[in-house]
Amino acid sequence: MLSTETITHAARDLPVAISGELQKFFVSREALVAPIGPHYEAVADLLAKFVLRGGKRVRPVFAWLGWVGSGGNPESPEAPSVLTACASLELIQACALVHDDIIDNSDTRRGHPTVHVEFAAHHANSAWNGDADRFGVAAGIITGDLAFAWADDMFHGAGLPRESHLRAFPVWSAMRTEVLGGQLLDIVVEASDDGSLESAEKINRYKTAAYTVERPLHLGAAIAGANDELISAFRTYGECIGIAFQLRDDLLGVFGDPELTGKPSGDDLIEGKRTELLAHALKRADAQRPQDAQFLRKAIGTDLSAHDIDTIRSLLVDLGAVDAVEQRISTLTDRGLAALENSTATDSAKQQLHQMALTVTRRAF
Amino acid sequence: MLSTETITHAARDLPVAISGELQKFFVSREALVAPIGPHYEAVADLLAKFVLRGGKRVRPVFAWLGWVGSGGNPESPEAPSVLTACASLELIQACALVHDDIIDNSDTRRGHPTVHVEFAAHHANSAWNGDADRFGVAAGIITGDLAFAWADDMFHGAGLPRESHLRAFPVWSAMRTEVLGGQLLDIVVEASDDGSLESAEKINRYKTAAYTVERPLHLGAAIAGANDELISAFRTYGECIGIAFQLRDDLLGVFGDPELTGKPSGDDLIEGKRTELLAHALKRADAQRPQDAQFLRKAIGTDLSAHDIDTIRSLLVDLGAVDAVEQRISTLTDRGLAALENSTATDSAKQQLHQMALTVTRRAF
Repeated sequence: MLSTETITHAARDLPVAISGELQKFFVSREALVAPIGPHYEAVADLLAKFVLRGGKRVRPVFAWLGWVGSGGNPESPEAPSVLTACASLELIQACALVHDDIIDNSDTRRGHPTVHVEFAAHHANSAWNGDADRFGVAAGIITGDLAFAWADDMFHGAGLPRESHLRAFPVWSAMRTEVLGGQLLDIVVEASDDGSLESAEKINRYKTAAYTVERPLHLGAAIAGANDELISAFRTYGECIGIAFQLRDDLLGVFGDPELTGKPSGDDLIEGKRTELLAHALKRADAQRPQDAQFLRKAIGTDLSAHDIDTIRSLLVDLGAVDAVEQRISTLTDRGLAALENSTATDSAKQQLHQMALTVTRRAF
Repeated sequence: MLSTETITHAARDLPVAISGELQKFFVSREALVAPIGPHYEAVADLLAKFVLRGGKRVRPVFAWLGWVGSGGNPESPEAPSVLTACASLELIQACALVHDDIIDNSDTRRGHPTVHVEFAAHHANSAWNGDADRFGVAAGIITGDLAFAWADDMFHGAGLPRESHLRAFPVWSAMRTEVLGGQLLDIVVEASDDGSLESAEKINRYKTAAYTVERPLHLGAAIAGANDELISAFRTYGECIGIAFQLRDDLLGVFGDPELTGKPSGDDLIEGKRTELLAHALKRADAQRPQDAQFLRKAIGTDLSAHDIDTIRSLLVDLGAVDAVEQRISTLTDRGLAALENSTATDSAKQQLHQMALTVTRRAF
């Protein structure tokens, strides 16, 4: 455990302190993994590298701000256990990413091969039996499961005071059921060609907003024993800012600079992602320009040329979909910030959450 | 929660009581799932049906016997919470089965389509976009994850007395890390053509014995606050009987009657499963009959004819591999039963565990 002094000093360096918690947790698992042998140790190492490579620690930071914003004292004796519990969110995220990359058939993540691709390469390099890709998927499923099991070990074993743990546990449960629901909805909507605004909004709500901002803040607030009004304010902020964050991400997925987003230009269009942006465009095109609606429906999710991508971009602008999404980002951000401002959260947390809201919804890249 | 009376009466009907706990748990999740919509509700339903269709409840029964065998009183106020905690093992098992069926590319399980195959069929029947099999795998991964998350919700939310929960938690953690290690080892050994006895033994130890018998018993004993000697006796029993159970299963996978095992004849040979049975055969053939060793290595894991399967069966008998495995089953069973007999477990638990050992290691089918 970190000394309380370290945590106080680390207010600015929260992501570093969170990585430190994760590192200690991985060390604590070594005695369980070692008897099963070097192959399993290699998997645990790969998982640890994958998690420790991550940087922003968005979910643990929101959880921590939920706690200090509800009066949690970083110099109190329970602070180290709270930091551990917050850090455990990164292991749920590791499972989500590893399994999502299998589901989406993604080869790279932030410049590195995805976990299942790495295992497939290991299989191929070792000249093993059977299909390397199938092996990669199998080992990736198991690695994601391990991250999920360890998230629980870390959260429930954080040493939270009994009452804090009891309050936080239903939030933890709800968050996991919700994010899996969002993932499920995401694949169903894509498969069933459901271009409705309602479905796109629901995915943003459950796959991103609840999981990334609302429930982490709620978790921290629950640990601190915040009252219902403050929890409700945090949840409103979390839902609004979380959805706005996803909408910004959707715009970047179509218009972003590949050098800055790390994704090929127009990637979301080629993948056929059913975003609110696209739903707005389809709704407007259906009403006013049926031939454009037909073109969009046919084109999305196919192997688009650079020219096609440019055409679609222009359409999204001309149909007013981009403006509609920008407007919604702005409305949501205002609503989220108002809920925060009118809450009884501590001034310092208000300030930090205000800054985070601006950062995630107005990302420059 | 069941009334204590119900539990006492249900001693014979333990699997029924366990199913009742699972059913109640699924009902408790409805409020979390419903807001995410009908697609997610359908997944939750499918998972519930999958779990409730299972019958023997081997792991929860061992956990319960670990508890009553350590002096846990089925008429005490905490008994219902112990039953809930024991029943949660079925949800870990659901995740293991659903993900394993994806990993093994299995189409059926106990006469029903596997979960990912069911989702693929739903995709195909709905004439959705994209590849039905890929959709099935994606939805199967998410369903397994949901089972894993819910296992934790059920275990940690069972309402165990604080001290019991604190004692049981490290056992719960170890069990999950171990079973995932066993699964990982299983796919690595098959891919790398590792026919060693050592690896086969390790897989039996972690994928089956620890997970199916040893840790469930340990979990129950830990809940009851058993002393180290009794826990050690249960673990010896669990390891020995669990491995013997797997060895019996391996024999049935090659020699079993398909009508009774529910698997095609010689299925394990076609699948290329690296069993101790096969490792014994290879070791003996290497020493005495190199041309048979070569034949076995080439044949295993290929699309064998009925004639090939018969040839391999004869070889396994002639090489003495079958005798060696039968001998080991017998030695392990004796050792496990001796540990039980010499322990301070209650007489009634001794009797039931004795019976279960005979049932799982001498299955008639």
